[in-house]
Amino acid sequence: MTDTLRIGVAGLGTVGAGLLRLLAANRDLIATRCGRQIAVTAVSARDRAKDRGVDISGFGWFQDPVALARDADIDVFVELIGGEDGVAKEAVEAALGAGKPVVTANKALLARHGNRLARLAEAHGVALNFEAAVAGGIPIVKAMRESFAGNRARRVYGILNGTCNYILTHMEREGRDFEAVLADAQALGYAEADPTFDVGGYDTAHKLALLTSLAFGTEVDFDSIYIEGIENIKPQDLRVAAELGFRIKLLGVALQTESGIEQRVHPTMVPVHSPIADVDGVFNAVALECDFLGDVMLEGRGAGAGPTASSVMADIIDIARGHTLPPFGQPASKLKPYVRARMRAHAGGYYVALDVYDRPGSIASIAQRMAEQEISLESILQRAPDISSEVARDTNGARAETRPVVLITHDTLEKSIRKALERIERDGHISRPPRMIRIERL
Amino acid sequence: MTDTLRIGVAGLGTVGAGLLRLLAANRDLIATRCGRQIAVTAVSARDRAKDRGVDISGFGWFQDPVALARDADIDVFVELIGGEDGVAKEAVEAALGAGKPVVTANKALLARHGNRLARLAEAHGVALNFEAAVAGGIPIVKAMRESFAGNRARRVYGILNGTCNYILTHMEREGRDFEAVLADAQALGYAEADPTFDVGGYDTAHKLALLTSLAFGTEVDFDSIYIEGIENIKPQDLRVAAELGFRIKLLGVALQTESGIEQRVHPTMVPVHSPIADVDGVFNAVALECDFLGDVMLEGRGAGAGPTASSVMADIIDIARGHTLPPFGQPASKLKPYVRARMRAHAGGYYVALDVYDRPGSIASIAQRMAEQEISLESILQRAPDISSEVARDTNGARAETRPVVLITHDTLEKSIRKALERIERDGHISRPPRMIRIERL
Repeated sequence: MTDTLRIGVAGLGTVGAGLLRLLAANRDLIATRCGRQIAVTAVSARDRAKDRGVDISGFGWFQDPVALARDADIDVFVELIGGEDGVAKEAVEAALGAGKPVVTANKALLARHGNRLARLAEAHGVALNFEAAVAGGIPIVKAMRESFAGNRARRVYGILNGTCNYILTHMEREGRDFEAVLADAQALGYAEADPTFDVGGYDTAHKLALLTSLAFGTEVDFDSIYIEGIENIKPQDLRVAAELGFRIKLLGVALQTESGIEQRVHPTMVPVHSPIADVDGVFNAVALECDFLGDVMLEGRGAGAGPTASSVMADIIDIARGHTLPPFGQPASKLKPYVRARMRAHAGGYYVALDVYDRPGSIASIAQRMAEQEISLESILQRAPDISSEVARDTNGARAETRPVVLITHDTLEKSIRKALERIERDGHISRPPRMIRIERL
Repeated sequence: MTDTLRIGVAGLGTVGAGLLRLLAANRDLIATRCGRQIAVTAVSARDRAKDRGVDISGFGWFQDPVALARDADIDVFVELIGGEDGVAKEAVEAALGAGKPVVTANKALLARHGNRLARLAEAHGVALNFEAAVAGGIPIVKAMRESFAGNRARRVYGILNGTCNYILTHMEREGRDFEAVLADAQALGYAEADPTFDVGGYDTAHKLALLTSLAFGTEVDFDSIYIEGIENIKPQDLRVAAELGFRIKLLGVALQTESGIEQRVHPTMVPVHSPIADVDGVFNAVALECDFLGDVMLEGRGAGAGPTASSVMADIIDIARGHTLPPFGQPASKLKPYVRARMRAHAGGYYVALDVYDRPGSIASIAQRMAEQEISLESILQRAPDISSEVARDTNGARAETRPVVLITHDTLEKSIRKALERIERDGHISRPPRMIRIERL
């Protein structure tokens, strides 16, 4: 057995405490598997006295995570503080600069600064591992860096946020509104008090930025991601989708096209028989399509102390075993610049839900606007079941009944559907803005 | 860039030819990811002249794979010959003995000789990688060796044979008999002319033997596996299972119990809402339950040139990157002897299908036999729909009508259900041997 690998852990929230518990429970097992002991030497957190359910009295204590990162008595720095800037970034830079490998669960940090941090890690010949940053316990980072490395990727997509998936699953099962299910999720601890980061799609986008880079060998480019959250999804959308053979999931998708790579996060209609359609509740899943392997999907727990700590531990074990790879699977200097395929050039089918004033000619006019953009319709549902008609005021202020109308288009361009919907709205046949959900062919 | 890694490939069937195609198509991509070139130097197969759709004229040729394995001009030996003994084994031993890392897709070889070959590889400090031996393109071996290495496993299970899954999926969808669907599968090339190895569960058992070792750190013990194939499954079993909220899959299961580890391959009733229930057709999936990670499942293509070649390539890439681990994730000398939990001690629920003579007292007698073994029944279906009654001869040679009866038991012991069924058969109330399918709580 070689020397003990000495770990410094900064951040003792759910995941940090989980990591200490994991190491305490499975120390011997891990030592056998690694051929050496792994031991936490020192920790850092905001409050030393806080009860975390684990005894930290045996570890060295640093009030300042940056000082811990530089400490000569640790071999690996584990960053579980979070946040895209500030002390997390400073500490990671300090550790890498001091030639210490870093393990982090911080997707925001890497989505923003991944290119630079990867170059810094490689310049010092050390690992920057982040399995826990994407999809919790699911080993997708390693799979993409190593297991799928013989393949050329075409598309990677995933359910990357358990909060959104919980909400959509329960809206569908119970026919309840977004707001009501969100309140439940908050009460159960599945959603934050301020849920914007999750339900608005930003957390998914952070993870997608990393998956894109791993899949296509491009620089991380978070700012180019098209992001749409789940706030506007209605229970009737889920119901109509089911009737049409689809389910609605918040997906992060990166797709190689002729003009570049699409990166997009949005509610997505997925065929009910596709494997990802069955991923429910707080589970996450990541699927990859590539040239030789074909389709593969990994499914598991995307958050929580145990699963996330399991991934952090896997990254530490790699370091203990002397296994160091470039963070994004190839040297940072060889990552290609990300070439964005613009969202307006996206091609696909669309689900469009309209509240149409119930008067002669409105449907004809809508169909005409679609035809002008050369959009052909796969189906028109003029009265989705269980959706009562509403009374609204039309553009002239008169009371008018509206009826829900759902259109499913054949493949068309995003710019065409947007232009058609803009015209339809201007024509005054609908009582509120249209809802549009993209269909993903899987 | 360091030196080119020189590969010798023995066996140019589907997978071998696929590997040559993969390397030709993605050579530059792989070189960027590995930091070095990977090139096939020499090959060996039975017939040099055979058209494989790939040009092999640029490679060295060896009639004898054992000579190729020892050749000084190769750095890695890739064994794609197959078979648990004979030349495949000889060649692998020769390569390891010459200090050359080996990559193999040969599950039979490893299920039989894995312990000894692992020790041989470790004695020479070289890799013995076998990602392609279990579940084709699914990266389960690496995930278990590396990504889940911080966890203690409780259960690993999987759909590991695409032929069986194809047959069961189509029997269920089309309501057709085993024999008819098997004939289709043979015509489509999804089943061999002699299908015993697949449909009898032996192929699944080979793969399970390796998964057990990876999950629990025990020596490979193929001979202890309880094996039952899918030959006796009837379309009505699939139909009744569906009504009861189950699907029937051929699973390989390894489960840690108090008395040891169960290893079993048998048709299994899985809850319709469990992720593995949705894995259809030729797809494979492996699921793992462990202490920190919780549940995780990997799903993908379990066979075929591309997916299998992708896994072989991943193993080669690991070697190119200098990443060598003990074959079963910990030193072979530290693998614990496998302690078998006997099948008779297996605890679980059971589906029992009986053809019961339609006369007074037969059901009462059957229920009594169950009660004697302290088996409590969750449900009794006295007349499964769409199953017509049959005319058979009872034990006295008289003509008698039979009715299908299905019993679902609460959890009980295998030895109890076997004893009960033995008595029921002896009592003469049923016209043919009972069919029993184990229920797995997932």
